Amino acid sequence: MLIGRVTGTLVASQKDVSLEGFKLLILRQLDVEGRETGAHVVAADAVGAGVGDVVLWASGSSARQTEMTRDRPCDAVVMAIVDSWEIEGAQKYRKTPAGGPWAS
Amino acid sequence: MLIGRVTGTLVASQKDVSLEGFKLLILRQLDVEGRETGAHVVAADAVGAGVGDVVLWASGSSARQTEMTRDRPCDAVVMAIVDSWEIEGAQKYRKTPAGGPWAS
Amino acid sequence: MLIGRVTGTLVASQKDVSLEGFKLLILRQLDVEGRETGAHVVAADAVGAGVGDVVLWASGSSARQTEMTRDRPCDAVVMAIVDSWEIEGAQKYRKTPAGGPWAS
Amino acid sequence: MLIGRVTGTLVASQKDVSLEGFKLLILRQLDVEGRETGAHVVAADAVGAGVGDVVLWASGSSARQTEMTRDRPCDAVVMAIVDSWEIEGAQKYRKTPAGGPWAS
Amino acid sequence: MLIGRVTGTLVASQKDVSLEGFKLLILRQLDVEGRETGAHVVAADAVGAGVGDVVLWASGSSARQTEMTRDRPCDAVVMAIVDSWEIEGAQKYRKTPAGGPWAS
Repeated sequence: MLIGRVTGTLVASQKDVSLEGFKLLILRQLDVEGRETGAHVVAADAVGAGVGDVVLWASGSSARQTEMTRDRPCDAVVMAIVDSWEIEGAQKYRKTPAGGPWAS
Repeated sequence: MLIGRVTGTLVASQKDVSLEGFKLLILRQLDVEGRETGAHVVAADAVGAGVGDVVLWASGSSARQTEMTRDRPCDAVVMAIVDSWEIEGAQKYRKTPAGGPWAS
Repeated sequence: MLIGRVTGTLVASQKDVSLEGFKLLILRQLDVEGRETGAHVVAADAVGAGVGDVVLWASGSSARQTEMTRDRPCDAVVMAIVDSWEIEGAQKYRKTPAGGPWAS
Repeated sequence: MLIGRVTGTLVASQKDVSLEGFKLLILRQLDVEGRETGAHVVAADAVGAGVGDVVLWASGSSARQTEMTRDRPCDAVVMAIVDSWEIEGAQKYRKTPAGGPWAS
Repeated sequence: MLIGRVTGTLVASQKDVSLEGFKLLILRQLDVEGRETGAHVVAADAVGAGVGDVVLWASGSSARQTEMTRDRPCDAVVMAIVDSWEIEGAQKYRKTPAGGPWAS
């Protein structure tokens, strides 16, 4: 899985029937220091994420293993909102109640 | 999923029987600002897209989850035509009725 | 799917039983202008392609969806020989009867 | 499969139900000399690995083939803790009882 | 599929039960001229390959289609030992009885 930040949303009304009801999020990939890498992806939302949230997303066939995405032509899914992570014992990110700034 | 613009079509008459009836589109990948990245792919069309359309496409086994592509040797499918997207609250793309210019 | 040109063949006699009967082709990837990108892959042949042919190939689990490759440890398959393609209305490639030069 | 070193952990409380009970590890990829390549990934833990362990991880649908990850939206899994490896007859890594320094 | 040379072996005793009995090989990727590209991968052995052998390996879900790897968390498998290949009519590699030097 990779870490991303939700930066936008995408709307598509003319689509395969299997895609009805999808909310499509645009993610920017983050590295483990919380910096944007420049890469992006469009992912289906399985957890009610919104712009600004730091999330975990899965790709490939694994993206079809949530209740919302099963048997759909979806190759990327947001399946968790990240609370925090740490590297070598140091906290690198902690979610704030208002989706606020990075932890120091 | 990734965003692309349909730039061409490809014809192949000598092919595996499972490919009969496919319309094959050539896509150029777009970044979230709507710029071409230089990458391209050949994808099966599941939504009636045409040259000039900005589309959403899926890859891998997920490309076989549309009605048209099920159980076929297809690893990329156009499964939606994009209406619009926005990043950090700013609209980056909006489809015009004639498939016209980018929104400002 | 991606476009490639068949440049060679590979022989392997000591192999998993599920690979019996495979013809293995070496492909060089082409971009949409018909130029070699430098990347290559070894793919199973599902359509009777030969050296010099410009072909379409699929990767991943989709490579197992032809009659020849079903349930085999094959992650790349040539499933079509390309007749022609065009970009923005201009023909970029057209197959000649003798597998000859590129169309102008 | 690729070799990685566990460098951290990630917590996510708001997630798809299929992810309950997962322990999420942050890995840094190692090359065959044991050097970090700069790439990282978030993987589910199937073997009780901890920070500092050198592990083997699988990606894609193969990541769902452990007891812990079956049918879950998981595209990366740690499925073994590495004891040692050698290249051209020379030992490049050997696990020490305390998870200590690299073998010379 | 891609071509690689077996350069080493890896041992892991603490692993998911589904991995019992695997022999893990370290491969260096070769290009079609027989040169190392610098990339490597750890693959399960399905054909009795040893250090020095030039092999063909498959990745992703296709790596689970051999007798040895079915339903296991394995995303790379060596499923053939290469005898020879040729590019544009010129032999680029031929296996020697002792696993010896490259063909001229």
